[in-house]
Amino acid sequence: MAEATGRTGEAPVTAAMLVIGDEILSGRTKDRNIGYVAEFLTNIGIDLKEARVVADDIQDIADAVNALRARYTYVFTSGGIGPTHDDITADGIAHAFGVPVIHHPRAVEILKEYLGDRINEARLRMARMPEGAELIENTVSKAPGWRIGNVHVMAGIPAVMQAMMDAIGPTLRTGARMLSETVEGRGIKEGDIGGPLGQIQAVHKDVMIGSYPHSDGTRFTTSIVIRARDAGALAAARREVEALVDRLAAETGD
Amino acid sequence: MAEATGRTGEAPVTAAMLVIGDEILSGRTKDRNIGYVAEFLTNIGIDLKEARVVADDIQDIADAVNALRARYTYVFTSGGIGPTHDDITADGIAHAFGVPVIHHPRAVEILKEYLGDRINEARLRMARMPEGAELIENTVSKAPGWRIGNVHVMAGIPAVMQAMMDAIGPTLRTGARMLSETVEGRGIKEGDIGGPLGQIQAVHKDVMIGSYPHSDGTRFTTSIVIRARDAGALAAARREVEALVDRLAAETGD
Repeated sequence: MAEATGRTGEAPVTAAMLVIGDEILSGRTKDRNIGYVAEFLTNIGIDLKEARVVADDIQDIADAVNALRARYTYVFTSGGIGPTHDDITADGIAHAFGVPVIHHPRAVEILKEYLGDRINEARLRMARMPEGAELIENTVSKAPGWRIGNVHVMAGIPAVMQAMMDAIGPTLRTGARMLSETVEGRGIKEGDIGGPLGQIQAVHKDVMIGSYPHSDGTRFTTSIVIRARDAGALAAARREVEALVDRLAAETGD
Repeated sequence: MAEATGRTGEAPVTAAMLVIGDEILSGRTKDRNIGYVAEFLTNIGIDLKEARVVADDIQDIADAVNALRARYTYVFTSGGIGPTHDDITADGIAHAFGVPVIHHPRAVEILKEYLGDRINEARLRMARMPEGAELIENTVSKAPGWRIGNVHVMAGIPAVMQAMMDAIGPTLRTGARMLSETVEGRGIKEGDIGGPLGQIQAVHKDVMIGSYPHSDGTRFTTSIVIRARDAGALAAARREVEALVDRLAAETGD
């Protein structure tokens, strides 16, 4: 698919998401964080280019973090920063950066203030992070996330991760926002619109045209999604897609 | 986390899942295939070790396929085998294997039989696959998936992917099934059970113990999931976890 261009002179801002947790790979827990982060980043003009899910394994975490942080502007992780023995994200990322794991003094203070008598060795694990990490506020349950280099480390619980993403958002360099519009295919099948849609895409190289077949409850139809950073380019492509849908719907659809 | 051992003399069977599609990375469509494949494989004794999501980009697809097929017993992909210009999974995987893309003769026949007058150039794209690929039956919408080497290529639409997974299942070498049992934490917080649970894990190296905090609607509690391939090992660890939960629930929970 053609790559949309940003505003002139503006480097695209890219990102990868890394979900950490055996429970996702066993199927016991269904990931919701990739989809959330994808939408969040799209809305602020950052292109999510890749996502990965790895096990609670120090080497697997380190290998994935090193591959992703070298390739993209930002990396976001979720999972593995809780109080139990299998929460080893800190160890994996410290290994990736070649630095020791410490108890972050300010994180220890936050946990002690919030937890009072309930503080114990397990809960203090939540202050473990690579030396040099900076805290990310957690307005939900206080135990902070953290950032080291271009890697942002968040909790796995969706509500907590989302609060951390809100805290991170204003610190990120963002690109021109990707604009997106959907033309409903009104009963047209993807196989009928695929050929001419490819011709429109070939001419409009500054937009990205995707087609998504789905059932609307009573019939199969196709949504055509047009994305671009330039409103004029998007509008021009949209007009052609709408004319195509009008023509095909008259023949085969509504 | 400790790795569970399979039956004596049995090599573990491993897998990776690769989801292909811009619509997942933009957040427009939420992936449901990773979770489905994770559960499916767990139930037949195959360990899903990694999942990735990449864009509709030939080089990105090829790089991911080559990394994963070298590392795991099986690779499963979803997405990008439909009739439109952005369906380029065949091109990416052919590039990974260094073979040309052809129209598979039997796939062309299947499409012509099923589609009759509706056959066109776009729909014939669904017969494009790397030379040497073998077909995977699609009982839902006929256009087949395909296998090349250890890589199984499926549709992105969940109902179609699930039908293809059913067709693939009996062809796979499977390991000893992972047994899994959950002990409910009855209001115990993860930070209270984390320390002693780590001690149980340290002793029972042949099981995997995970703890998952969640709200049961009225309070926060923790589920403890114990997994092993050996029923005896699982039962022994479970007894200790249950005794621990009894003790802690008397102190802090129900």
